[in-house]
Amino acid sequence: MALLSALATEIVIPVCAVVGILFSLVQWLLVSRVKLAPEPRAPSSSSPNSNKNGYSDYLIEEEEGVNDQSVVAKCAEIQSAISEGATSFLFTEYQYVGVFMVAFAVLIFLFLGSVESFSTQSQPCTYDPLKMCKPALATAAFSTVSFLLGAFTSVVSGFLGMKIATYANARTTLEARKGVGKAFIAAFRSGAVMGFLLAANGLLVLYIAINLFKLYYGNDWEGLFEAITGYGLGGSSMALFGRVGGGIYTKAADVGADLVGKVERNIPEDDPRNPAVIADNVGDNVGDIAGMGSDLFGSYAESSCAALVVASISSFGIEHDFTAMCYPLLISSMGILICLITTLFATDFLEIKAVKEIEPALKKQLIISTILMTVGIAIVSWIALPSSFTIYNFGSQKVVKNWQLFLCVGVGLWAGLIIGFVTEYYTSNAYSPVQDVADSCRTGAATNVIFGLALGYKSVIIPIFAIAISIFVSFSFAAMYGIAVAALGMLSTIATGLAIDAYGPISDNAGGIAEMAGMSHRIRERTDALDAAGNTTAAIGKGFAIGSAALVSLALFGAFVSRAAISTVDVLTPKVFIGLLVGAMLPYWFSAMTMKSVGSAALKMVEEVRRQFNSIPGLMEGHAKPDYARCVKISTDASLKEMIPPGALVMLTPLIVGTFFGVETLSGVLAGSLVSGVQIAISASNTGGAWDNAKKYIEAGASEHARTLGPKGSEPHKAAVIGDTIGDPLKDTSGPSLNILIKLMAVESLVFAPFFATHGGLLFKLLWQQHRHQLNLASASISVLVLCSFSDS
Amino acid sequence: MALLSALATEIVIPVCAVVGILFSLVQWLLVSRVKLAPEPRAPSSSSPNSNKNGYSDYLIEEEEGVNDQSVVAKCAEIQSAISEGATSFLFTEYQYVGVFMVAFAVLIFLFLGSVESFSTQSQPCTYDPLKMCKPALATAAFSTVSFLLGAFTSVVSGFLGMKIATYANARTTLEARKGVGKAFIAAFRSGAVMGFLLAANGLLVLYIAINLFKLYYGNDWEGLFEAITGYGLGGSSMALFGRVGGGIYTKAADVGADLVGKVERNIPEDDPRNPAVIADNVGDNVGDIAGMGSDLFGSYAESSCAALVVASISSFGIEHDFTAMCYPLLISSMGILICLITTLFATDFLEIKAVKEIEPALKKQLIISTILMTVGIAIVSWIALPSSFTIYNFGSQKVVKNWQLFLCVGVGLWAGLIIGFVTEYYTSNAYSPVQDVADSCRTGAATNVIFGLALGYKSVIIPIFAIAISIFVSFSFAAMYGIAVAALGMLSTIATGLAIDAYGPISDNAGGIAEMAGMSHRIRERTDALDAAGNTTAAIGKGFAIGSAALVSLALFGAFVSRAAISTVDVLTPKVFIGLLVGAMLPYWFSAMTMKSVGSAALKMVEEVRRQFNSIPGLMEGHAKPDYARCVKISTDASLKEMIPPGALVMLTPLIVGTFFGVETLSGVLAGSLVSGVQIAISASNTGGAWDNAKKYIEAGASEHARTLGPKGSEPHKAAVIGDTIGDPLKDTSGPSLNILIKLMAVESLVFAPFFATHGGLLFKLLWQQHRHQLNLASASISVLVLCSFSDS
Repeated sequence: MALLSALATEIVIPVCAVVGILFSLVQWLLVSRVKLAPEPRAPSSSSPNSNKNGYSDYLIEEEEGVNDQSVVAKCAEIQSAISEGATSFLFTEYQYVGVFMVAFAVLIFLFLGSVESFSTQSQPCTYDPLKMCKPALATAAFSTVSFLLGAFTSVVSGFLGMKIATYANARTTLEARKGVGKAFIAAFRSGAVMGFLLAANGLLVLYIAINLFKLYYGNDWEGLFEAITGYGLGGSSMALFGRVGGGIYTKAADVGADLVGKVERNIPEDDPRNPAVIADNVGDNVGDIAGMGSDLFGSYAESSCAALVVASISSFGIEHDFTAMCYPLLISSMGILICLITTLFATDFLEIKAVKEIEPALKKQLIISTILMTVGIAIVSWIALPSSFTIYNFGSQKVVKNWQLFLCVGVGLWAGLIIGFVTEYYTSNAYSPVQDVADSCRTGAATNVIFGLALGYKSVIIPIFAIAISIFVSFSFAAMYGIAVAALGMLSTIATGLAIDAYGPISDNAGGIAEMAGMSHRIRERTDALDAAGNTTAAIGKGFAIGSAALVSLALFGAFVSRAAISTVDVLTPKVFIGLLVGAMLPYWFSAMTMKSVGSAALKMVEEVRRQFNSIPGLMEGHAKPDYARCVKISTDASLKEMIPPGALVMLTPLIVGTFFGVETLSGVLAGSLVSGVQIAISASNTGGAWDNAKKYIEAGASEHARTLGPKGSEPHKAAVIGDTIGDPLKDTSGPSLNILIKLMAVESLVFAPFFATHGGLLFKLLWQQHRHQLNLASASISVLVLCSFSDS
Repeated sequence: MALLSALATEIVIPVCAVVGILFSLVQWLLVSRVKLAPEPRAPSSSSPNSNKNGYSDYLIEEEEGVNDQSVVAKCAEIQSAISEGATSFLFTEYQYVGVFMVAFAVLIFLFLGSVESFSTQSQPCTYDPLKMCKPALATAAFSTVSFLLGAFTSVVSGFLGMKIATYANARTTLEARKGVGKAFIAAFRSGAVMGFLLAANGLLVLYIAINLFKLYYGNDWEGLFEAITGYGLGGSSMALFGRVGGGIYTKAADVGADLVGKVERNIPEDDPRNPAVIADNVGDNVGDIAGMGSDLFGSYAESSCAALVVASISSFGIEHDFTAMCYPLLISSMGILICLITTLFATDFLEIKAVKEIEPALKKQLIISTILMTVGIAIVSWIALPSSFTIYNFGSQKVVKNWQLFLCVGVGLWAGLIIGFVTEYYTSNAYSPVQDVADSCRTGAATNVIFGLALGYKSVIIPIFAIAISIFVSFSFAAMYGIAVAALGMLSTIATGLAIDAYGPISDNAGGIAEMAGMSHRIRERTDALDAAGNTTAAIGKGFAIGSAALVSLALFGAFVSRAAISTVDVLTPKVFIGLLVGAMLPYWFSAMTMKSVGSAALKMVEEVRRQFNSIPGLMEGHAKPDYARCVKISTDASLKEMIPPGALVMLTPLIVGTFFGVETLSGVLAGSLVSGVQIAISASNTGGAWDNAKKYIEAGASEHARTLGPKGSEPHKAAVIGDTIGDPLKDTSGPSLNILIKLMAVESLVFAPFFATHGGLLFKLLWQQHRHQLNLASASISVLVLCSFSDS
């Protein structure tokens, strides 16, 4: 048995989660010291102000109007407008999605309950028929509960993230007056609040759920952890709608605002005269923050669930070794502690003084957390695992050593770092790929787009090899369990990953607020520098999200195959191959929907913005205020309406395929969408990030080369703006949604596996019974029609 | 046994091929009646002229200067420049590729010869160990010969196609003076010359090769048809370099010419003042004609080979039923006859009088050929097949009825038609998708690109379902053989498909010549109308090419798996899964290379064109002639240099993976690249086609809606030009090359299967021997480095 006793495990996990939550509260307190409300001034007003935020630093640049209370008031006003917009959108979105969630919960209950015809009798266990397990009805009920719990936790994660981001954006702007270092710390701290809160919250809820479910399930761990997978499904379903809805919202506003403001009217980004500017800033918070928070929470929940469900049918579960069983949770607990130390390097141990130190600081975060975590994993593997144990491997039990499992988690962790670095290389304007793209703007938008697309395609190569090696190593060592813990390894530093990821949109918003509040050009330059680094970190975050999603989906896929009692998934059977082919097509279908949605919503936004510029007298001159609310409404309506079809595509495909075509075809669909979706997701987010930073490279004009392309308004810059606009839906809507697509279809298949195994494959069963092969063509066509029926949008 | 005797089969196949060749000669004669050389005039000069081309039609529009001999002379001069450029490029290209081909032929001989250590002893057969087969050395030698034969036939196909196209382009221009109908017939006839020559030539050479090889192999059909697969490999290897080299050539010139001419200098497309204009027109012939000819020849050769190799180990081969064995060739023979009748509908039975009749006429070609061919297939299936027979199915023999095989071929044929129609819907400017894209140009290039990409992604859905259904039906009925004949069914109307496909670039060239010869605006409008329909037919042709490539690759993949003696390709083994993942990545890697190549070459072209405009006095005013030859040289050098890395990627991947990782991983790579490549290829070519036609839609201004977007030079038109330029490398370089990628890797794996099965998987063997799993990580990394070593370009 493991060195760590079951009791110690029971204590350590919640303690770490609470530590994480406390740490995030401390960070929040530090951020909140930046006062937004105009204070009643003491006579010697500047000294207490300059001492705030824990630094006894003098004011670096007096001329930035630190003491100008009207600027503070304006920032506060803009912030509250953004916060209100975001809150109101999320509430509306959650209402819509809530209805869907309840409906889907009912579906889960009915489908899973029907497996044993709603019997309340105990049944022989699936994997060990000699033992008795709780009835399928209980699994149905508890799966439904954990589904709702996962959905709720996801909502809370997204919502809190958004609240923190909108709390921090204006504060970052105000700190930018005092220097880029202060602004960086404000933005980064706020990101950390979100990162830790989310990681700790996810862990805590899952832990509590397991303990509560155990009260009923007792020693039936197989049933217990099967029911727990609903948690992952709930988390990911919410994440899907959050990502898609938020993504459409933010990019409709962004594209619409840019097309009229920057291209037609030649006013700067985030200019307060632009009617879509508030919607644009709201969008960053609901899309990049709330959506991304839900997304990574989903990945985290699913990889934990995948690991747990496999562990429950391995020696850990069979021998009821609670500590070893909780190995995935212990890894996450250790991750919180490691990230806590890592964060201190950015906020306390090292200090940023110049723009060019921002990116290295963020990169150091990745490196430090990875190195420390490697040690952390070794410790956890040593104390929480027996030196040798067995892991379930498609019908047999495979003997695994604890150091092998350490390597599985480690390879995932380091693959994440490699993906992060490659992403940085391809999306940061410090390296040649983005500079080449910027250079291609000389000959216009067309070459910019061609080079950008080529860059995205090329950026796929190394991450795919990294993922492939992780899969090979972890699969060879510990089968599906190895892959699940490799995913957990990649996500173990999620708190740091989220912190540097959330930092991006916060800086973006801070820049917007600076512009709108009419602050000086130099402030804007600082926030732009933060934002350029933020584009890179956002791309890195997406790299992690997609890398972990690939591993998680594969682990879930493996669990599904075991649960559905398929022995092999042979590509060379027609059922599987057509699944593979159609599965590989789904990411394209999905992307077509989301990109078209962004395009159409952006066109509506353009019309509205043009209308306001043409019909509101004095708007261009700055005498009159635009009608921000109408633009917010357009984004809201469009995203709520447009998120339904892609959501339905993802949620219904496994149900339709499983029910009508059976588990073999569904296996093919999962494998196909996985291997195809990963590529599109990586290339889309890197292409978009590269275009955005190519534009920023030209705007910043930091090198001789960049200055030959600029300044703002030059022909190359205009070409770069077009690329940036095209990249928006790629990097913030369709790309990041795709990793949810692949994860969600896998976890949904796993949850519904008992139903599909019992009642699935209706079409083929029908054909089989009739032995009339000539009907194949006709029925296949009909089922395609069924599938196509929701393709019209 | 079959109704048709072996002797009759021996006669029917070559007769049909000769009929096809004769028909193409007749068409060529009809085209050649349009005289390019200024004739010595009889006093009543107009009457013999008006009677030429077999029509006793009066001159529709006298004012177009039909009698102006200086225009004719100018057209002849331009034509000879284009023809010379294309010939010289192809010769240079073939020299380069020739060296490669010889080297690869040596490789084939060495690899295959080494299977039995170059022994000259007869060996037990692979599939029937009781019988003796010819030595592996013989297979090595004959595979090498058939490889070279395939490569040579492919060269001839491409070269003849180019010759015909450059012969026809100026004649089409001259005919355009007499009306759109005459021009259409001239272009279509020339396309038909190419289509029939290619289809008949491919069939004839294959037939002769089989008969010659039989002299040695005698009754060892297993070895005979294994050696024949080299024919497919040779055809596809050439096609790869033809497509990639030609694609880079044409698009570098096109993009370069457009960026300076249309965007910067605001001169029309194909304006003779543009230095890159000859290179652009040469490119159409070497890329779209020669490349495409080689490509479809490759598909045809491979699907025939795939079907033959499976048939040889089925009852046809075992029982030495020559007629049934030749079923694939009989289908192709019937196809030639059917297409012959179909062509008459376009050239003789119906006549085109107005622009709007062009697209329906081409569509009718597809419909008529498909309906007639369905009857043709039924006849062939009835007379050439026994009513019941067995087909090899991964180790067992499956009983198949002749009507089932009819359905297999038929489902492929009709799936091709569906793909054709869907492609037409998404790329023709007569329907809403392209009109929506055009409409999105109102808000600039960015929305145009977003809508175009979304359109391409969406256009994948139905073709994939069509392919999936074909696969399911044909696989269920007749295993891999069913899929191979389904591919043949899709390609059975290849002569018509090529005719309508080649018609596009010929019309494009005709428009270029009209512009350069200074002919009137109305002539240009007519050729533009032809060209717009040509864009759609080009997209349809690509749809056929990719659809058939998907089926062919799967059939070859199946044959490979059988030959490599793998029982299942289980996705849930790490070896296969990482293959699948990396395989799905390869099309992205390949696209990145080719798109970057086009981009870089185009930038060089832009510099040269700008230099000439700036340094040659009087060029813009039309007083001085540009230096066309330098632009031709830039395109030539760039394409020859840039075609090597992507070519190497495709040719080396199966060798490296098979040798080091073994047949399981290679299976994964093949399946992954197939399911992922199909999607990118379809979406790339449709997106490109849609952008091109959205631009033409705005330029033509044929509807109320189109006129609100135009005219040429308006902001929406400029945005449309940007989209068109981006689409160029997508639709003419990377997209169409991808289907060669997937076919070529499959056929190469099949040819090398005996070697891989014997000596492959070195890395895993090493690991296995040492039983030291901890080395996996290190060695996997090393092999990735090997793979990456040719990624730098």
